[in-house]
Amino acid sequence: MTQLKDRECEACCKGAPLATQEEIDEMMPEIPDWEMIEDDGIKKLTRTYTLSNFAEALAFTIKVGELADDVGHHPTLITEWGRVQVIFFSKKIQGLHVTDFIMAARTDSLLNS
Amino acid sequence: MTQLKDRECEACCKGAPLATQEEIDEMMPEIPDWEMIEDDGIKKLTRTYTLSNFAEALAFTIKVGELADDVGHHPTLITEWGRVQVIFFSKKIQGLHVTDFIMAARTDSLLNS
Repeated sequence: MTQLKDRECEACCKGAPLATQEEIDEMMPEIPDWEMIEDDGIKKLTRTYTLSNFAEALAFTIKVGELADDVGHHPTLITEWGRVQVIFFSKKIQGLHVTDFIMAARTDSLLNS
Repeated sequence: MTQLKDRECEACCKGAPLATQEEIDEMMPEIPDWEMIEDDGIKKLTRTYTLSNFAEALAFTIKVGELADDVGHHPTLITEWGRVQVIFFSKKIQGLHVTDFIMAARTDSLLNS
């Protein structure tokens, strides 16, 4: 089966479908360190990565930011000394699209790249 | 008078003094777009910069991050499409040190550099 990180990101436009519970149940095991949170009623995916200092955190933010900008699906990146929190959701549909899960998996794969 | 951004950053170690009200009243007018907030009882300085897209926001985050790492006084940087929120405070003294105000002024000066 194709790994989550290798799946194609679909364009997420207004009216695109939210990820179904069945899709979520299938994808979450591939991103075990991510948490689904609800923020003002909007489902989001988040993971906090631990890095060894500020420079490492900033370097990771840059990698994630460049990946996201290439794909055109942009997270919130919270950079601090020794850690980066990444939050994905799809603003246009006010929730989680399959693309958010794919981006989470791709972000994980940047950690040791 | 030396501009705030050109003042020397003092090392902020445990036991260093919090900025006094007199110092705050003197420095705030030099950083008029910054807001003093209280987060869990800890005073912090924050400003949200508006940029034109994600790439510009990431580029600004990198500039601020590199400046901060050179000085050794690290903010929280929240990067999103079209904006970057910067938060400074001094963890070691759980509040605001003069260095936080100097760093805020230097961050402002990066905007059009």
